[in-house]
Amino acid sequence: MGRALNHFEAVAVSVDMEFKHEVAEWMMGLQDRICRGLEEIDGKASFITDPWQRPGGGGGRSRVIADGNVLEKGGVMFSAVHGPVSERMAKMLQLPGDEFFATGVSIVLHPRSPMMPIIHMNVRYFELAGQTWWFGGGIDLTPHYVVPEQASWFHEQMKDVCDQTDPALYPRLKTWADDYFYIKHRQETRGVGGIFYDRMGPNEPYGRDALWAFTQAVGNRFVPIYAYMAEHNRHLPFGEAEQEWQRLRRGRYTEFNLVYDAGTKFGLETDGRTESILVSLPPLASWAYNHQTEPGSREAETLNWLKKDIDWLVAA
Amino acid sequence: MGRALNHFEAVAVSVDMEFKHEVAEWMMGLQDRICRGLEEIDGKASFITDPWQRPGGGGGRSRVIADGNVLEKGGVMFSAVHGPVSERMAKMLQLPGDEFFATGVSIVLHPRSPMMPIIHMNVRYFELAGQTWWFGGGIDLTPHYVVPEQASWFHEQMKDVCDQTDPALYPRLKTWADDYFYIKHRQETRGVGGIFYDRMGPNEPYGRDALWAFTQAVGNRFVPIYAYMAEHNRHLPFGEAEQEWQRLRRGRYTEFNLVYDAGTKFGLETDGRTESILVSLPPLASWAYNHQTEPGSREAETLNWLKKDIDWLVAA
Repeated sequence: MGRALNHFEAVAVSVDMEFKHEVAEWMMGLQDRICRGLEEIDGKASFITDPWQRPGGGGGRSRVIADGNVLEKGGVMFSAVHGPVSERMAKMLQLPGDEFFATGVSIVLHPRSPMMPIIHMNVRYFELAGQTWWFGGGIDLTPHYVVPEQASWFHEQMKDVCDQTDPALYPRLKTWADDYFYIKHRQETRGVGGIFYDRMGPNEPYGRDALWAFTQAVGNRFVPIYAYMAEHNRHLPFGEAEQEWQRLRRGRYTEFNLVYDAGTKFGLETDGRTESILVSLPPLASWAYNHQTEPGSREAETLNWLKKDIDWLVAA
Repeated sequence: MGRALNHFEAVAVSVDMEFKHEVAEWMMGLQDRICRGLEEIDGKASFITDPWQRPGGGGGRSRVIADGNVLEKGGVMFSAVHGPVSERMAKMLQLPGDEFFATGVSIVLHPRSPMMPIIHMNVRYFELAGQTWWFGGGIDLTPHYVVPEQASWFHEQMKDVCDQTDPALYPRLKTWADDYFYIKHRQETRGVGGIFYDRMGPNEPYGRDALWAFTQAVGNRFVPIYAYMAEHNRHLPFGEAEQEWQRLRRGRYTEFNLVYDAGTKFGLETDGRTESILVSLPPLASWAYNHQTEPGSREAETLNWLKKDIDWLVAA
């Protein structure tokens, strides 16, 4: 802080210290529960655990799975890092600060079958010591083939999670996801969206406890959602044509993550752990020049759904 | 320009008009010659031509090749575009300006065989009407397996092209390539480098004619270099292990192009033609979590060569 803390600041910081450790512990437990849940869904592959330390302070526990029945490649990453705020970090945050603390769980799953969606979840908590704090996160779905009924079911889940805190939350975070998961140079959304939020802190009307409860609810909803998607899609037949389309869609996923994703950018630019950040990239992706879909095909139909501002609650 | 030109400005602009058209015409001819040369090397596949118009002014002629004997996917792109300088463009250029003109040829070739290198070339000319002009370009080589003798031969070619203008040029542009084609988050160079230059204009001691002659020499050297690489590598045996390594290295190539490449970034952010910009991405790429090479293997050896500041002229 560059000076001694006064009494109130010292109390505030010590309360925050305890809270942030409570959050980090819960996040670690969430990682455990999600990995167990995904192994159960997969029925074949297990996660390997890769603990790592951050030179500047803190560390993480990367868990990856590969070559499963359902999952071709997936990562469920926990981290709790802290340390002095670098110049680069302050610039990216657009906030000054001396010490930061960040903890969260981040997931990307690439299924083997093109009939299963790619899914992403992130829940995170961030603190600038003695200054501010915020939560961020969300879940979004990227089907290789959009099934409108399933996208609607997924958005109902997201609405349900949001409504427990505030009915105004779902429309706001749904729009936020539409805007965030947008591949501008392709003029298409990454998938059917979901919810996204960032920097929800003292400026919000909810207070810390409610935002924390909300963030926990988002994390807890992940496994049931993926279980539903697996149940409905894992046994659907597919062939080489569907796999080719899957590889092309994974190429778009790669474009989004490397060109636009703020978390990836922040991680790479602040010397985060590259392997943990880029675990989101697909096991196999392809690019073809000016690929065109057959009019009326399921591929063309899918592209038609990759738009902002679809009201999925009434679309199906 | 926002006002009438005075006599000297009018003369300068009219001379520039002629010059820029001369450059564009030569670039288009270079694309023709390179495509013919590559078709001859490949012996099987032919380029398809895709002309396009830029809504704001100008256009291009994209040429792509696929599924050849040597080339799995390649693009040789010509463009000559002009129009008002957008706010975004001015910001990216860090220069004010009313009207711009840009022409060039850009190439990325992804060979079928992992024993062949990926190669990239770009030659370009840029003008801000009545204000400034510059040349840029270069050739760089990204072998999936580094063969030091071939990297040395390639750098000798680059030195030879540079020396015709100035013996001081090769060391400068070689270092520029090392710095430019660097994947910071992997702490490795994209390949064995080559030469790179940008914004070489009136501030250089050479003058426009010498820089134009130099840029032409770079463009003319491309086909002989690729012919040499094909002659030495196209018939080497390879199997699934080498192809897996090739896909991983193509993943790194994708990371460089989407995260760092200034041309890609500039193109995407100024609403360039996405398909022409991203033709550089590989036909098939893969990512594996924390991939490790066997100590002493050719893959490990290759990683050892992916460093800055190797003096290839004495390294082999």
